[in-house]
Amino acid sequence: MRDVRMRGFAQRMDVEEVERLLRARLAQVGPDGGSGAPLGAEPVPLLEAAGRVLAEAVEAGVDVPGFDRSAMDGYAVRGEDTFGATDYGPLTLDVVGESYPGRPFDGTVAPGQAVRIMTGAPVPQGADAVVMAEVCQEKQGRVEVRDAVSPRKHVGPAGEDIRCGDLVLREGRRLRPQDVGLLASIGVPSVACVRRPRVRLLVTGDELVRPGEAPGGARIADSNSPMLRALIGRDGGEVSVEHLPDRRERIRAALEAPGADVILVSGGSSVGQEDHAPGLVAELGSLDFHGVAMRPSSPAGGGRVGEAHVFLLPGNPVSCLCAYEFFAGPSIRTLGGRAWRWPHARVRLPLLRKISSQVGRTDYVRVGIEGGKVVPIATSGASILSSTVRAAGAVIVPRELEGMAEGVQVEVLLYGGVDELDLPAVSGAENAG
Amino acid sequence: MRDVRMRGFAQRMDVEEVERLLRARLAQVGPDGGSGAPLGAEPVPLLEAAGRVLAEAVEAGVDVPGFDRSAMDGYAVRGEDTFGATDYGPLTLDVVGESYPGRPFDGTVAPGQAVRIMTGAPVPQGADAVVMAEVCQEKQGRVEVRDAVSPRKHVGPAGEDIRCGDLVLREGRRLRPQDVGLLASIGVPSVACVRRPRVRLLVTGDELVRPGEAPGGARIADSNSPMLRALIGRDGGEVSVEHLPDRRERIRAALEAPGADVILVSGGSSVGQEDHAPGLVAELGSLDFHGVAMRPSSPAGGGRVGEAHVFLLPGNPVSCLCAYEFFAGPSIRTLGGRAWRWPHARVRLPLLRKISSQVGRTDYVRVGIEGGKVVPIATSGASILSSTVRAAGAVIVPRELEGMAEGVQVEVLLYGGVDELDLPAVSGAENAG
Repeated sequence: MRDVRMRGFAQRMDVEEVERLLRARLAQVGPDGGSGAPLGAEPVPLLEAAGRVLAEAVEAGVDVPGFDRSAMDGYAVRGEDTFGATDYGPLTLDVVGESYPGRPFDGTVAPGQAVRIMTGAPVPQGADAVVMAEVCQEKQGRVEVRDAVSPRKHVGPAGEDIRCGDLVLREGRRLRPQDVGLLASIGVPSVACVRRPRVRLLVTGDELVRPGEAPGGARIADSNSPMLRALIGRDGGEVSVEHLPDRRERIRAALEAPGADVILVSGGSSVGQEDHAPGLVAELGSLDFHGVAMRPSSPAGGGRVGEAHVFLLPGNPVSCLCAYEFFAGPSIRTLGGRAWRWPHARVRLPLLRKISSQVGRTDYVRVGIEGGKVVPIATSGASILSSTVRAAGAVIVPRELEGMAEGVQVEVLLYGGVDELDLPAVSGAENAG
Repeated sequence: MRDVRMRGFAQRMDVEEVERLLRARLAQVGPDGGSGAPLGAEPVPLLEAAGRVLAEAVEAGVDVPGFDRSAMDGYAVRGEDTFGATDYGPLTLDVVGESYPGRPFDGTVAPGQAVRIMTGAPVPQGADAVVMAEVCQEKQGRVEVRDAVSPRKHVGPAGEDIRCGDLVLREGRRLRPQDVGLLASIGVPSVACVRRPRVRLLVTGDELVRPGEAPGGARIADSNSPMLRALIGRDGGEVSVEHLPDRRERIRAALEAPGADVILVSGGSSVGQEDHAPGLVAELGSLDFHGVAMRPSSPAGGGRVGEAHVFLLPGNPVSCLCAYEFFAGPSIRTLGGRAWRWPHARVRLPLLRKISSQVGRTDYVRVGIEGGKVVPIATSGASILSSTVRAAGAVIVPRELEGMAEGVQVEVLLYGGVDELDLPAVSGAENAG
């Protein structure tokens, strides 16, 4: 039996210090030297572009609409032909054709003429206004007009939505459903988007059975990798998972293999004798932080191996979640052109019971929401994954505070959507209720 | 040339009335007669389950952990053997083996003995406590213990996270990343989830070119279907898209074809002569509403054809977005077991300029956010998709109000994530900044 060195961390970095370090490191890399997304661009077909981040600004190459269009169902006319028309003194025009969306009237509207027109259809040559159907009466090829319209009335001019040459979407925009609609409206078949970060997830631990397999005896299930997969997906990463034995050479090979933008190591991240990863990262690249003044997740670490940003996530599931959210998640999002900021929906509500912490340490506190108040969940065990399942979200107690008093308003980072919260309605419509 | 009837809507239903009608209709359908999700269940593999909705509650079939585990690196001992140990008077125990995660010590710890143990490893038979490595010194097969531990100290008992038989997740839960981790921890290979609603999207309009093709002449691009695809995906639906000419028989066939839980008709939904869909829905099933007291989207409609919930979405892109958000989206979410409530992140901020509306009409107002204030976007044109791209979100002016005054706090339903907003920091840590 070997003699074993068992020790704690000599010193811990502050959360803010680690965040500054990571942000500085992320700003250095990438093809363009830093501003914007560090990763390169790839073409993405229009129908797959929702949620992706634009790598380049998009300019319109066409007017939208490309023609003057009718904003009403009615009759396209020369406005001046209607001057003087009233309920008591209607004017009569000859109906010489019709204009439908996609099937325009090909002729020209001459003085004394009108063309029946549908909403969205091109306004024919010669006409400069549309009379609403409601003030017209059509009989035997003629239409009685009972109201005057000035030129341009009810006509949406070419380019009223978008003008050719307009900058319609900026670089860095995360595409929303309507953005994709807009791209379609200018006839764009694909757009240049920031490549999704490639994340290699290394799961170490001889005691682990694969997700979906039954734990038993001294073996427990790997619960971290399914959780991390979902988190990485949320943050726009593409994940590959490798389960590795606690053997130094296997972990070394997986750290050194090319092709990953980010490597997450789940488990074996601390300072015990089976914790190979920290030493390997230091040996193969640089171990930039290891040991953080936070609870949970104090054994979290990170550094670089080659081009890959490496994060060491403690094996305890709550610590793993917390270390991911503070360090790995923001880095993955930033690499992919998204925001460093946490993506959680937030609510501000009063604390039902005080939260105790320590000055100099950042705490990630799981909380419930009951009757519109925030309830800290009693357990502090980093091994109790079920506490994060019972929780509605987390409250972060910053380093400067020794806690938060009962009754103060705190911001809850929600684990689910706001639509899942049972909160009182805040606005009139049913949808908000 | 035919004589044409062109008319407006005889009367319009209130938004709330339509919402009540839809919710009542959704509560009637489904295998279980209404409560919970209307659609049936399907097994979903664990690794695909994040974001899905549980159709059945999940009970744990095992304890987690399945054994007493060490919460520390140190030595597993009989607590009473350490009683009296101090810095000045250490006690010495024989080290008889080691327990690693997944590689437990198979023997029994007898009085006077200790087993070297790692965090997470099974506590061996005989031992009932763990002494932290920091207060121990191991030399030549013996360990000096300089602090006493009471029985159960630093031992996480079997079942401390989850007990066999515990209800770990309720029916209707939308699975979060940590939920999937928890399911893995109890060895579940797949879970019964609510089937995703099958949404058939019918795009009508002879003037439309397909998304990705260039518009030109009198033809414009179909911008609604790419937008709706993304929205349906957001709401958990599975979408299939069919582009149809403005021909009654083609639209009839697409409405009657089996297999859809929801049918959306984009365009041709109003009361013009080319608007076939409303009449067909009335003929083939029931047209439950058509014409709503709202702006935009007043020509929106809906009903049933067979088992399918049908929604008529106006062709103007802003109206289409608005009608989807008010009626189709909530229905799709509800069918799939999600919340009726809008899923948008929300912020409450003061209005920079007043919003005018009318009592009796619900308005969906696109707004920007500038310097922490809400700025209504001037254009009211339902055809101006670019206004929803420039907007940060929407404010809903309920029917009871004739507007909202400058300076009042309003709730903005955000089009993007909160992480994309440039708002002042609200909590101490960097992540909130």
